[in-house]
Amino acid sequence: MSTPTKYLLQESQMPKFWYNIQADLPKPMPAVLHPGTMQPISPDDLAPLFPMSIIEQEVSTEREIEIPEAVREVFRLWRPSPLFRAHRLEQALGTPAKIFYKYEGVSPAGSHKPNSAIPQAFYNAQAGVRRLTTETGAGQWGSSLAMAGQIFGLDVTVYQVRVSYDQKPYRRALMETYGARCVASPSAETEYGRRVLAEHPDHPGSLGIAISEAVEIAAQREDTKYALGSVLNHVLLHQTIIGLEAMEQMQMADAWPDVVLACTGGGSNFAGLAFPFIGHGLRGGTAPRIVAVEPSACPSLTRGKYAYDFGDTAHLTPLTKMHTLGSTFTPPGFHAGGLRYHGMAPLVSHVRELGLMEAVAYNQVDCFAAGVAFARAEGIVPAPEANHAVKGAIEEALRCKREGKAETILFNLSGHGHFDMTAYQRYFAGDLKDESYDERELAQALSGLPSVPA
Amino acid sequence: MSTPTKYLLQESQMPKFWYNIQADLPKPMPAVLHPGTMQPISPDDLAPLFPMSIIEQEVSTEREIEIPEAVREVFRLWRPSPLFRAHRLEQALGTPAKIFYKYEGVSPAGSHKPNSAIPQAFYNAQAGVRRLTTETGAGQWGSSLAMAGQIFGLDVTVYQVRVSYDQKPYRRALMETYGARCVASPSAETEYGRRVLAEHPDHPGSLGIAISEAVEIAAQREDTKYALGSVLNHVLLHQTIIGLEAMEQMQMADAWPDVVLACTGGGSNFAGLAFPFIGHGLRGGTAPRIVAVEPSACPSLTRGKYAYDFGDTAHLTPLTKMHTLGSTFTPPGFHAGGLRYHGMAPLVSHVRELGLMEAVAYNQVDCFAAGVAFARAEGIVPAPEANHAVKGAIEEALRCKREGKAETILFNLSGHGHFDMTAYQRYFAGDLKDESYDERELAQALSGLPSVPA
Repeated sequence: MSTPTKYLLQESQMPKFWYNIQADLPKPMPAVLHPGTMQPISPDDLAPLFPMSIIEQEVSTEREIEIPEAVREVFRLWRPSPLFRAHRLEQALGTPAKIFYKYEGVSPAGSHKPNSAIPQAFYNAQAGVRRLTTETGAGQWGSSLAMAGQIFGLDVTVYQVRVSYDQKPYRRALMETYGARCVASPSAETEYGRRVLAEHPDHPGSLGIAISEAVEIAAQREDTKYALGSVLNHVLLHQTIIGLEAMEQMQMADAWPDVVLACTGGGSNFAGLAFPFIGHGLRGGTAPRIVAVEPSACPSLTRGKYAYDFGDTAHLTPLTKMHTLGSTFTPPGFHAGGLRYHGMAPLVSHVRELGLMEAVAYNQVDCFAAGVAFARAEGIVPAPEANHAVKGAIEEALRCKREGKAETILFNLSGHGHFDMTAYQRYFAGDLKDESYDERELAQALSGLPSVPA
Repeated sequence: MSTPTKYLLQESQMPKFWYNIQADLPKPMPAVLHPGTMQPISPDDLAPLFPMSIIEQEVSTEREIEIPEAVREVFRLWRPSPLFRAHRLEQALGTPAKIFYKYEGVSPAGSHKPNSAIPQAFYNAQAGVRRLTTETGAGQWGSSLAMAGQIFGLDVTVYQVRVSYDQKPYRRALMETYGARCVASPSAETEYGRRVLAEHPDHPGSLGIAISEAVEIAAQREDTKYALGSVLNHVLLHQTIIGLEAMEQMQMADAWPDVVLACTGGGSNFAGLAFPFIGHGLRGGTAPRIVAVEPSACPSLTRGKYAYDFGDTAHLTPLTKMHTLGSTFTPPGFHAGGLRYHGMAPLVSHVRELGLMEAVAYNQVDCFAAGVAFARAEGIVPAPEANHAVKGAIEEALRCKREGKAETILFNLSGHGHFDMTAYQRYFAGDLKDESYDERELAQALSGLPSVPA
């Protein structure tokens, strides 16, 4: 028999702690600033939006943070997730490289997003919160929080970017199946939404606007908090279960990665896989190369500026230092909806500035071609977001082929594409273009970054 | 820690043999008849459609038939599949019953169908076949055969029922992602298709018509064979890997089912789970109750006649004795497309006549309600077909609650519903009706059954 295809951990081998990379970084992150005073915020400033247990995780520098047993119990519905050896893809590419992928599409929502939705719902329920608001683009985060809210008895309202709300009714149906209420954003339910609609009644919406709406409602109501699916430190922390499991599984396979790749939008699935490996290197272990793969139509890491910026369009959020295209930047309508965000997680940005990772950008047509090659070899059809990681891994494998190197490649297959088949259909019909942003619009968005006292 | 949520087998524990129930039945199946002579067919009569290795499996009475290593190697992409204990559903129902489910939605195509598509493609490739034709309704079988054909280097043409082709473009996109050609049926590519279109240019198609088209092409071409996704003995044989794994996993859980349930359309996922348990009973082991759950709008087991009938509409197939609603019966357009077939697998029908199983029918609105309750408890959103099994299992669990019995229930969750979210959307909008057939049409279809010499 050949070497195994899958490496499976038993439920008893599921990590009991998340890994906090802040404990091992040579330099602390830049402060988060209050949008009014431009002074560092205190935990209390975040209290209207998040329960204190989550705020503590947001600012913690402890290396290990315990995963509550109630959270682990829900995780058992799909975790530990499998690690695959891509035997057939290696053969198809004729590469001497060994390719491994961690597969997060086994969750009921089909992506890695429940890894943070479940603990966020748990901590809110524990704090007596009754309702959660959030935003969603394509719906991966919204459906994950809907599931989590249902499990812990919280009402969930999801502000979904209108263009997705109209064009992707199945993901909305998934949110409703889990009992959430889904509202097209911009909506008439918030002051900010009404303001946008007054100016542009047909506004297609954006993630930045939807965040503003969700935050506005949560800030106003005593029993309501807000939940974000990426970008923030605690979300990245929750996702590290991916990399912690993958490290165990690589050892089962008697292998260790030379290079680790994941796609980046807000940064959560990337950080989830990469941070435990980076930390291993920072503590003296063998450090793989770490590569973030982003869409060339929304290239915050490769074309953005490392500067203080807002997380939303209405400028209700605190200011964080991050790689940003500017909060007024509107990415073109390419298919990897989960990667259409103007900024990068401040913690990922900081790690990048410390020289601990690389970044590369690919266009969507090349990424879909990579996804189809992957599906035909491995069976699983990747989500459009995950196609970026697949593309990055294939490029590394072909480099190994050219260089005659038998390196070990590990990437994160963050979700399946069963909700995104219309994008594949457009790809086969030749209707998919390499969407690119307007250089002038980018320059304008970057010139409008808030000025912050040094 | 509570008892585990999942019971996982290692790849090395995957069954090496399929189980053939024909070896253990007290009475052999009725003969299959040639449509021209009305005499029992010989293996040679099937040779235009299937390679000899598959025909041998179709007529074999050996108890154990080896799974080729090349097939097992592909199975490792998702098998062994997990067995779950439905802790949260039990709690939600307040039942003393233990509920287990075998989950086949982990396959890349999202259902149990690749369990037969992979070996069928393998045996055809081994016999030098270059092209396969098949039919599909909603697309679960078509996408599975598309994937299998891609893996073993076969061209696959799928005749898809036109109404599904038009209304469910995502499953078509999945077939194309795997490299198959998808044709709306009735089509102008076959004599029979042209005949149907001449009479009804807007014909919405049916599974029976699509089978006729796929069979017609395969019968005409030397390098082309036909593949069917259910009904036939060899398909049921291939699916027994489900039940064989489940038996191992129930032992891991230190439990044994009192009742085993699965939904039935053509019968393959039902036979796959149930036959190994029935066989265990026939050989003197503890026999669970076995329950087939069918849609009340297409109730072949509960309302059909046990009689010889054709498998297709054009009457190109051999005659088999089965529970049938008549080959001219057109089921109403309910959402569980995989259960819309006029007949039941002859082997399942025979097992039913031998008194080794029960059957029950539920309407689709009740089944969707059961599916939503399941999704809210367990996370996974079932396919509309699988909702029938969920409904059956919930009814058994509620019976246990009424009777105060702590029975063990096992059912097959044959696929996920991520491709079927529009059906859930219609359910929440209140647009879903309890479709029922026309009693007069059923009577007419049954009166038109072919007469066969005794």
